[in-house]
Amino acid sequence: MDTRTGLPVVGMVGGGQLARMTHQAAIALGQSLRVLAASPDDGAALVAADTVLGHHTDLDALLAFSEGCDVVTFDHEHVPGEHIRALVAAGRTVYPGADALRHAQDKRVMRARLAELGAPMPAWRAVTDATDVARFVKAHGPAVVKAAAGGYDGRGVWFVDGEQDVRPLLQAGADLIVEERVPLRRELSALVARSPWGQAAAYPVVETVQRDGINVEVLAPAPGLDRARVSQAQQLAITVATELDVVGLLAVELFERTDGELLVNELAMRPHNSGHWTIEGARTSQFEQHLRAVLDYPLGETAPTAAAVATANVLGGRSEGMGIDERLHHLFAEDPGTRVHLYGKQFRPGRKLGHVTALGDDIDDVRARAQRAARWLAEGAEHE
Amino acid sequence: MDTRTGLPVVGMVGGGQLARMTHQAAIALGQSLRVLAASPDDGAALVAADTVLGHHTDLDALLAFSEGCDVVTFDHEHVPGEHIRALVAAGRTVYPGADALRHAQDKRVMRARLAELGAPMPAWRAVTDATDVARFVKAHGPAVVKAAAGGYDGRGVWFVDGEQDVRPLLQAGADLIVEERVPLRRELSALVARSPWGQAAAYPVVETVQRDGINVEVLAPAPGLDRARVSQAQQLAITVATELDVVGLLAVELFERTDGELLVNELAMRPHNSGHWTIEGARTSQFEQHLRAVLDYPLGETAPTAAAVATANVLGGRSEGMGIDERLHHLFAEDPGTRVHLYGKQFRPGRKLGHVTALGDDIDDVRARAQRAARWLAEGAEHE
Repeated sequence: MDTRTGLPVVGMVGGGQLARMTHQAAIALGQSLRVLAASPDDGAALVAADTVLGHHTDLDALLAFSEGCDVVTFDHEHVPGEHIRALVAAGRTVYPGADALRHAQDKRVMRARLAELGAPMPAWRAVTDATDVARFVKAHGPAVVKAAAGGYDGRGVWFVDGEQDVRPLLQAGADLIVEERVPLRRELSALVARSPWGQAAAYPVVETVQRDGINVEVLAPAPGLDRARVSQAQQLAITVATELDVVGLLAVELFERTDGELLVNELAMRPHNSGHWTIEGARTSQFEQHLRAVLDYPLGETAPTAAAVATANVLGGRSEGMGIDERLHHLFAEDPGTRVHLYGKQFRPGRKLGHVTALGDDIDDVRARAQRAARWLAEGAEHE
Repeated sequence: MDTRTGLPVVGMVGGGQLARMTHQAAIALGQSLRVLAASPDDGAALVAADTVLGHHTDLDALLAFSEGCDVVTFDHEHVPGEHIRALVAAGRTVYPGADALRHAQDKRVMRARLAELGAPMPAWRAVTDATDVARFVKAHGPAVVKAAAGGYDGRGVWFVDGEQDVRPLLQAGADLIVEERVPLRRELSALVARSPWGQAAAYPVVETVQRDGINVEVLAPAPGLDRARVSQAQQLAITVATELDVVGLLAVELFERTDGELLVNELAMRPHNSGHWTIEGARTSQFEQHLRAVLDYPLGETAPTAAAVATANVLGGRSEGMGIDERLHHLFAEDPGTRVHLYGKQFRPGRKLGHVTALGDDIDDVRARAQRAARWLAEGAEHE
C-alpha cells in the first residue's frame, strides 16, 4: 500500500503503450502505476513518476521492482514462467499467474488445453519434423505454420504449401505448430476481465482488421454479428478465462469462418489492441478494468457509450514533411471530435505510434473518420 | 519541444488535482506534463514523471522550471503578476497572461473591468473604509463583503449587516469589496476555452451546488435552463474571454437570480471544479481542452456524451472505520458504473479528496448516484 494515499501499488512489468495507458487509468483510481521499463525513453517511462529501469528477463530486477507492490502484472507476455514462480515464492502476488500465462506464451500449450475444453479451433498439430507438415497439408490443404512462442504482429507466421517450406524454420530451431488455413470472413475479438474472486465481465465483441498481420482497425461492436454469435463468443471467453484461471484481462482472438462459425485464433492476457476503443467507448476502459481485476476490486460496467466506435492504429509512415506536432494541428482542425492517443514513441516506419478513436451513430462514418485521422498522423497528408 | 517525441512540453505551475488530471490528458496527446510542485506528496507530483519541486512565489524556481517549456500555465491563480511578466521578459510563453489573470486574482479589477464591458453583475463597490459598507447597506440592504484577493471555497467571504462587521476585517489589512446579496435561485457555471489565435469553444452551461461555500455537486447540463439563457451565458463567457484576452480555460461563475437574470459572480482561468464532468461527459475533457488552448491547437468538440451527467465532490468526512481502499471496494460493488477520480491526498476532514461522476438519461437518477457514491467514499457508510 502507498502510505501517502492509503491506496494499493500495482507494478507493471514492461514500459510500452499498454503500461502508459494503464498509468492514465491508475491516476483516476488514486494510484500511480509502478513501471519496470527497459529504457527511460519507453512510452510509460516518459509519463509515470514511479518508473524503475530493468529488464523483464532479469530475476533480480523483477524481485527488487516488485518489493512493496500489492500486485504485479504485465504489459506483455515475455516474462519467463520460472521468474513468475520465483516472484510468487518470494511472497509477491502476480496476475495473471504463470500457469495461466503459459497459454498466451506457447501456442502448443494453448491449443492442447483448448482442445481439452472443447473450444472451437482450426485443425492443428505440433510440428516435430517436416513430414508432420507434409501429412497435415495432405489432410487439410495449404496450411499456416506458426512459431509456438514469441510471434506477434504477423511475425512468426508462415504460409506453407508443403514440407519444403518448413525445413529452414526447423533448422533454425523454432518450436512450431501447423494449422489449417481457415476460410475467413473476418477476425473478431472477445475481451473479458476476471478477478481472483471469480467475477467476470465481458465487453461487446469487436471486429479487428489486419494488414500485413498487424491490427490496423477495430470496429465496436462487430458490425452485423448476430446476438447468438456475440453470446457464444463472450461465453467462450469467460469459460477460457475461468478454466485457465486467468486474472486480469483476456482477449480471445477469433476467426469468423465464411460459414459463420467462430474459431479461436490466439489468446492475450493483458490490455489488448482490440480494447483501445473502450477508453472512450465503454463505461469502464480496459485499462481500469485490468487494474480492478488484478486488485480484486469489483469490475466496472462494460456498456458502450456510443452506438458505433472505431479505432485505427497510427503506424509510422512518411517521416519527411510535417512533424507529428504539425500533423496533430491539421487533424484537430479538420475533425475536432477525433480522440487521439499518442504513445510517446520516436517515428519509425511501420511502428505503432498511437491510435485514434471516433464515436458516433454510424459505423461506416466513424470508421472513415478514424481511418482518415490515422492516415493523416502517419503520413502527414491524405493518400490520393 | 521534447526531442524524444517531437511533441511540445507544457509546464504547469502548481501540483494539485488540476495538474494531476491535466497530466492524464497530456498523456493521450503524446506529452508528459511538467509540474512545479511545492511538495513531493502533491497529487500531481505522485503521478507525473517530470516533476520539479519549487514554490510558485519563487521567481528563480519559476525561471528554472520553465526553461525548455513550450508554454507555461497554472493549476491555480496565485502566481504574482510581476513573476509572470518576468517570465515573459525572459522569453517564456505564459498562458493566461498576467493582464488577463489579474481579473481572476483581484475582484476589484474584475468588477471594474466587467462593468466597462456592461456584463450583468450584482451591485458592488470597493471598500476603503467602514463607512463605504454602511452606505452600501443603506442603499442595497444586507450585503456580502469579500476579500479582493486570495479567497476560495467560501474563505474570504463575510455576510455583513453594517459597518461594525467590517471594521475587524479592515483592521486586519484586507483589500475588500462589498456586494449586494443576490436573491438566488441557484448558481451556474459557463466554461469556455480560448486559444491565442482567438478560437473559442463553449461547454454546456452547468448548475453548481455549494455547501458551506464549497462546491459539492455539478449538474450538466443545468436542469431546466432555457435555451436563451444558455446562449446568453455562453456568449457572455466568450465575450469576457475575448475582451480580457484569456488564453486557456475560463470559468464564469454565475448567479441565477430568482427572476431568472444571470449575474457574474467570479472568474477562474484554469481547469475548474465545474468542468470535472467533462472527463467522461463531454467529447473533449476540460483538461485536454486547456492543453489544446494554451498550445494553440484547434479546440476539441464540447458536445456532451450523455443526456445527463452529475459529479459530486468527495470531501473528507469520517476518517475512522474503513480505509479509502475498502470504501472503494464497496462502492464498486454497489454501483459498477460510477466513475471515480481520487486525487492522491491524505484524508483530512473537509478536504477535497476526489470526485465521482455518474452518467445517464435522467438528471435526478445520476445526481442520486453521484451523491451516494461521494458520501460512501467520504464517510465509509451511507448517512441514515
